[in-house]
Amino acid sequence: MAAKRGIGSLAQRKLMVLIDLDETLAAFEKHFMFKFREKYPNEPYIPVEKRNTFYIADQYDKLNFTDDSVRFELKKIYRSEYFFRDLPEIDGGCEAVKEMAEMEGVEVFICSSPLFQYKYSAPEKYEWVEKHLGPDWINRLILTRDKTMINGDILIDDKVHITGAMNSPSWKHVVFTASNNQNVKVKGEKLRLDNWTDGTWRTMIEDFKKRI
Amino acid sequence: MAAKRGIGSLAQRKLMVLIDLDETLAAFEKHFMFKFREKYPNEPYIPVEKRNTFYIADQYDKLNFTDDSVRFELKKIYRSEYFFRDLPEIDGGCEAVKEMAEMEGVEVFICSSPLFQYKYSAPEKYEWVEKHLGPDWINRLILTRDKTMINGDILIDDKVHITGAMNSPSWKHVVFTASNNQNVKVKGEKLRLDNWTDGTWRTMIEDFKKRI
Repeated sequence: MAAKRGIGSLAQRKLMVLIDLDETLAAFEKHFMFKFREKYPNEPYIPVEKRNTFYIADQYDKLNFTDDSVRFELKKIYRSEYFFRDLPEIDGGCEAVKEMAEMEGVEVFICSSPLFQYKYSAPEKYEWVEKHLGPDWINRLILTRDKTMINGDILIDDKVHITGAMNSPSWKHVVFTASNNQNVKVKGEKLRLDNWTDGTWRTMIEDFKKRI
Repeated sequence: MAAKRGIGSLAQRKLMVLIDLDETLAAFEKHFMFKFREKYPNEPYIPVEKRNTFYIADQYDKLNFTDDSVRFELKKIYRSEYFFRDLPEIDGGCEAVKEMAEMEGVEVFICSSPLFQYKYSAPEKYEWVEKHLGPDWINRLILTRDKTMINGDILIDDKVHITGAMNSPSWKHVVFTASNNQNVKVKGEKLRLDNWTDGTWRTMIEDFKKRI
């Protein structure tokens, strides 16, 4: 009977995967660059592939703008209505996530931090998920500014340093490669996932499934 | 050195408390009744203290309305703009939560499920928390339709049956007494918290602190 209980527990245990939105599934940087160039066509800008800081302002602030007030307007771009709603997809991300959710023994949740200026970003993240993944995914979206509070076996996220109230989060961090982290050496137990298109995510998920 | 490490870990371990919004801190039922009576002054209604189902429609649906179309309009009340923003406070809740967050060795997060019709409820929950608890609490609000995915030692929530993707959530459920659960016998390991005003919450939190 003890053995039966053990088997039962094992059979129920699923791999819990948390997936970030911005710059993991939704192309924040690309859209920011587009909106910036649309608004300031005569100002210098940073092409997505040359972006190398997590926060946009840290790098844009070093540019020599013709009109110096531009540097104080940067945040307004992503704090504007429809910015988050209109983010394009990262190549292959939504297809991969939908396929992953169909894998046996795998549960997928989307885990995203809204801006502190939540007015548009909070509802528009729901809107994005509903549009690009489908209405059922409204039930699988978690909004939190502290991802250490979320349960999971893996968190796939482009932000390299994720801290919060829990010193030891339950998840293993898989750094999703993005321009902002391309030059960062991923240390410790962290892994990298470079894209959603070459199929390596499948092997990675299968490997994690074996380990739980 | 081993002992030192042990002490270090113990010293860092805090009691993680998750607290629900609707009907635990925010008076959903009272506001619904107010809005319903405002809209349908000539229709029968259910006084808050007689509400005895978790979902409003389950009980209101049994009333004999003069105009039968009323029963199809119920959900529109809480799906409307400003419904969640304007919820009054449950007596003593916000004061208790702020005091709890100041206790040594305790971390408090607000954990709330937005409506599937998220358009107003998602941003207005942030608005409510900002207004009633303060802007810092934006960082401590977690929106999720599956609370089993959230890490914590305790979840204080009026909903008696909380299920989700995790069969064994990390938290112990403390049922916050509300009209909808007043006749429900709380089973198993669950506790009850009857109010935020008689100070029993402090003893409860201190007891939990001793057990982690």
